[in-house]
Amino acid sequence: MPDADRVPVAQLSRFMAAALRKLGLPEGDASLVAQLMAEAEAQGSDGHGAIRLAPYARRIRAGGYNLKPDIRVVQEKPAMALLDGDNGFGHLVMHKAAQIAIEKAKQCGVAWVGARLSNHAGPASIYARMPLAHDMVGLYFAVGNANHLPPWGGLDMLLSTNPVAVAVPAGEEPPVVLDMATTVAAYGKVKAKAQRGEQMPEGWMIDRTGQPLTDPKRAAEGFLLPIGGYKGYGLALVIGLLAGTLNGAAMGRDVLDFNQDFRTTTNTGQAICVIDPAAFGDVTGFKARVDQVIRDMRGAERMPGVDRIWLPGEQSHEKRLRSERGGLVLPAALREQLDALGAELGLAPLGQH
Amino acid sequence: MPDADRVPVAQLSRFMAAALRKLGLPEGDASLVAQLMAEAEAQGSDGHGAIRLAPYARRIRAGGYNLKPDIRVVQEKPAMALLDGDNGFGHLVMHKAAQIAIEKAKQCGVAWVGARLSNHAGPASIYARMPLAHDMVGLYFAVGNANHLPPWGGLDMLLSTNPVAVAVPAGEEPPVVLDMATTVAAYGKVKAKAQRGEQMPEGWMIDRTGQPLTDPKRAAEGFLLPIGGYKGYGLALVIGLLAGTLNGAAMGRDVLDFNQDFRTTTNTGQAICVIDPAAFGDVTGFKARVDQVIRDMRGAERMPGVDRIWLPGEQSHEKRLRSERGGLVLPAALREQLDALGAELGLAPLGQH
Repeated sequence: MPDADRVPVAQLSRFMAAALRKLGLPEGDASLVAQLMAEAEAQGSDGHGAIRLAPYARRIRAGGYNLKPDIRVVQEKPAMALLDGDNGFGHLVMHKAAQIAIEKAKQCGVAWVGARLSNHAGPASIYARMPLAHDMVGLYFAVGNANHLPPWGGLDMLLSTNPVAVAVPAGEEPPVVLDMATTVAAYGKVKAKAQRGEQMPEGWMIDRTGQPLTDPKRAAEGFLLPIGGYKGYGLALVIGLLAGTLNGAAMGRDVLDFNQDFRTTTNTGQAICVIDPAAFGDVTGFKARVDQVIRDMRGAERMPGVDRIWLPGEQSHEKRLRSERGGLVLPAALREQLDALGAELGLAPLGQH
Repeated sequence: MPDADRVPVAQLSRFMAAALRKLGLPEGDASLVAQLMAEAEAQGSDGHGAIRLAPYARRIRAGGYNLKPDIRVVQEKPAMALLDGDNGFGHLVMHKAAQIAIEKAKQCGVAWVGARLSNHAGPASIYARMPLAHDMVGLYFAVGNANHLPPWGGLDMLLSTNPVAVAVPAGEEPPVVLDMATTVAAYGKVKAKAQRGEQMPEGWMIDRTGQPLTDPKRAAEGFLLPIGGYKGYGLALVIGLLAGTLNGAAMGRDVLDFNQDFRTTTNTGQAICVIDPAAFGDVTGFKARVDQVIRDMRGAERMPGVDRIWLPGEQSHEKRLRSERGGLVLPAALREQLDALGAELGLAPLGQH
């Protein structure tokens, strides 16, 4: 049984849905956005979960969202579609994109759906994982909502942490789910460190003189470091071209900082690619081969001091199971922030939902 | 005019085609493989160009290749195909895969073509770039032909450097072409360092005790480091699942070391994804937006001591133009190796082709 300090995932979802309804979202949209936000929290994506409710509320109040968007297909071919998100919540846009891509992949073997005029949609893995329920592979690409790194060798922050996620179904094993920013650390992790009052390790950020920056409250004075140096810069750039430029969405200097500007349309770009393994042959055999790869990795001889070799997404998977069974432990500062917002909106505290 | 030490790209291509014919490849196949190998050399992919002729010859002589393969589609949907490479040269398999993907992308907006029973095909960017001639975007994924890194925290080398390449057409600017191994250095670069008698920088490889390994001649005693630590491990793994496991090709413990075993079928897996920007809207507008992103990156304020900000693929592009105009300067050791192989096969020296 969950103890008193633990918040059931469904309770967090109900609370956030109630808040979003009070803020003006239609009931179905509020429930879906809240459910995806709670799912992010449940899997440990703490930079993309409940912590985002306050900035979403601030953007709604500033008029930065279209709360009744007409999310529609504006370009289409058998295996692709381009969505105009009409400045609605990104969760709604990319949930729809994933559904369309899954249907098209059933017909065509693979499908790619891009979006423009979308908004922040939470962790990349939430959408990459949606095809798993259909025994399909998902790939997700997004342009981040604030630029935090310069091109390699530069000082102007023209690139975001542009994440990529890939989800591959397994048989008896949990699916392989990679979800990574193209920087050493995602900016959401910097924010979470700041909220918890912790320092960042060296290597996450540098300041404009190239010195390590470890105080997350000084994050605005520096920039994130890309993985593998120029390689991470290249990855961030091509992901931005695929998820942003190709869709007619913001990329590079057009990306506004949604931590500073709560009103201007972000024109966020994202894309999802779905591959149907059934088109390649027997799905059961494929999933059994994935199981074997997983077990081979996990069973490898370990370096001294390493207790366990993890697969991508395995820790999130275990976290999700624990959250669903035993509820969530939210940081005190986050819980206070949620209850304060709830009080402003005339809602009972989180624990009473 | 090329000086005497410089080898015209076409001359290198003719020499390698003659050698491959002598080794038993049909004339058209020999010419295509040689042309793609020369293209790799011309763009500066020195680990994947002419240096590979000798190991290819050794594998042919050991009976490791099918020289008259029936490269055929074994699974197909409107936007995908799976090729059986019949153990032919990887260049032939992936050239065909790219052609099929381009045609399917014209119809469907996007297409994905995977291959199994293929072989080493040279640098990833060669295939990712093929759609550029059709104003299309190319993505390429491959399982490397020898395992050089363990899962993160492990010691068993179960993963290869599994590369990814992405090519995006621009308007007036050169295309953006990212081509990266998921390790800090590709193993081909280690081989090139060894051939040139140079040391590797720290950070490319470590030995089994975790100490830096800088002598490329001791490469077999250690393993390559993934970019971004566990992130690069995750990338190498999911690329291997997409390019290998999905296609029924080798991945993980099934990958043989083609530097040690010249006879056993490698069952190499690769995949190409092609996206048609015309499906998303006006292509000229798209390419103009890519131009703008390129110019913004290049024009960013620079760190002290940085002369120029490069875009991914820009240095290869300039190298290719220089090679086509002025010929190639091959390292003396490579030139000797080529002429020695040529003499064995009864061919005139490279400079006389």
